[in-house]
Amino acid sequence: MAENADLRALVEKVTGQPGFTSAIGTRVVAVAKGQVQMAIDRRPDLVQFNGYFHGGVIAALADHAAGGAVTTALPDGKIAVTIDLHINYLAPASGETLVAKATAIQVGSTVSVARVDLSTTIAGSEHPCTVALVTLRAVNIA
Amino acid sequence: MAENADLRALVEKVTGQPGFTSAIGTRVVAVAKGQVQMAIDRRPDLVQFNGYFHGGVIAALADHAAGGAVTTALPDGKIAVTIDLHINYLAPASGETLVAKATAIQVGSTVSVARVDLSTTIAGSEHPCTVALVTLRAVNIA
Amino acid sequence: MAENADLRALVEKVTGQPGFTSAIGTRVVAVAKGQVQMAIDRRPDLVQFNGYFHGGVIAALADHAAGGAVTTALPDGKIAVTIDLHINYLAPASGETLVAKATAIQVGSTVSVARVDLSTTIAGSEHPCTVALVTLRAVNIA
Amino acid sequence: MAENADLRALVEKVTGQPGFTSAIGTRVVAVAKGQVQMAIDRRPDLVQFNGYFHGGVIAALADHAAGGAVTTALPDGKIAVTIDLHINYLAPASGETLVAKATAIQVGSTVSVARVDLSTTIAGSEHPCTVALVTLRAVNIA
Repeated sequence: MAENADLRALVEKVTGQPGFTSAIGTRVVAVAKGQVQMAIDRRPDLVQFNGYFHGGVIAALADHAAGGAVTTALPDGKIAVTIDLHINYLAPASGETLVAKATAIQVGSTVSVARVDLSTTIAGSEHPCTVALVTLRAVNIA
Repeated sequence: MAENADLRALVEKVTGQPGFTSAIGTRVVAVAKGQVQMAIDRRPDLVQFNGYFHGGVIAALADHAAGGAVTTALPDGKIAVTIDLHINYLAPASGETLVAKATAIQVGSTVSVARVDLSTTIAGSEHPCTVALVTLRAVNIA
Repeated sequence: MAENADLRALVEKVTGQPGFTSAIGTRVVAVAKGQVQMAIDRRPDLVQFNGYFHGGVIAALADHAAGGAVTTALPDGKIAVTIDLHINYLAPASGETLVAKATAIQVGSTVSVARVDLSTTIAGSEHPCTVALVTLRAVNIA
Repeated sequence: MAENADLRALVEKVTGQPGFTSAIGTRVVAVAKGQVQMAIDRRPDLVQFNGYFHGGVIAALADHAAGGAVTTALPDGKIAVTIDLHINYLAPASGETLVAKATAIQVGSTVSVARVDLSTTIAGSEHPCTVALVTLRAVNIA
């Protein structure tokens, strides 16, 4: 994954501005054209009744990472917004950290698609927990 | 929708315990067997860059409402957990409140399915913004 | 459902031309703006190992009905093609006929969404078997 | 992919019996534990109005390949049936052959998940056209 400083600055800007993604502590781990890796650390306000990451938090990270991956592959001045989101929960996200790796698998002038693989880090090793397909559309940055 | 006090108490208990659903301010509006209505009010930490409810918050409410709707239709001692989640974003959730109406459309001993219709309330009238299909499975309450 | 003869002619033309939908015997039952009802009768070449309608046939009918429903709501000269398809199989389609009722729930200049409810007819009564959400995009008729 | 003769015989048996999958000419290309590759050749009765493979045929092949991949990873006497199916159409399937590669990404005693990558072969080279996530459940072979 060929890290790109300009694309990383763009993704960090969108991720860090006030709102939900910064409130839940989303961290940008790595950015390349068409690929983004992000992470969230477990906090008491991000879990469900059994102490694992809540499915909604997982969906939010998948959604945001997909948007980042596609946006980095769009022409300047365009940003990707989600049309629909499909998520399969494979295993409980019981670790300390939730990591999402998103890859743009199709980039079009109107519609794009990203695949997201999520894992949870337990004692330093990654365990796959969720997989998502996200459909997005390019809009002009206001 | 025939409100049921016992079922409502169950859904409120799961919704109100410490964790993500209570942290984002999820309110239980109405509960009947196989049906749940929930709402969240807009806050600065729940929106995306354009000020609308973040897609991840919408997914979280859809997921949680689906779980509530199916759980109320399961035998005592069982709770529904999500297997997979499909969401179509129809329009921006630009209003003050986000409302989810979930209905169990199939309840099985292993697999169940809920449909969720979400709307956003603008000046007192509801505008549909999102639809979801959620597949769940029944597990024993620990 | 206000039947519309012009829209019905359009949907019948697309459905009846040589290809998969006519090969599997797709019948147009009713057409209104934004709504289409279609049916297929069971045949030995449309079932799976247990004699029920094959999931692929069900997906095909859902897909085609969704395309019809959205196309009838688009401006003249546009046709809807599927971006993605999500299907929940609720019960075996064990009856003699498979019926799909598709409704356009969002119609946009680029992206549209249809909901499809499918049932199977057993001894004259309809039994819900499948529900789908289909995302489509408008393209010019060649 | 470590080809396995016994598993291949099982998948070929299910695929070749009278019904939809044999009627559309489904060929089993390769089988290993948890992985199946299948193909269909283009025929006039399998296309849509523009001459490409119909989305329903693509969905059918994805569904059937997913079932095969998971079934080969289940204990003897169990077969996987589809709970739900999510498909993203990335590009028209305009080639002579449609190829599906399915991999079981989670195998459970009740619920399993497969990822399917589909491509179309044009002049001998494979072009990705579709990606799917399929959720299945294990049932006893009657």
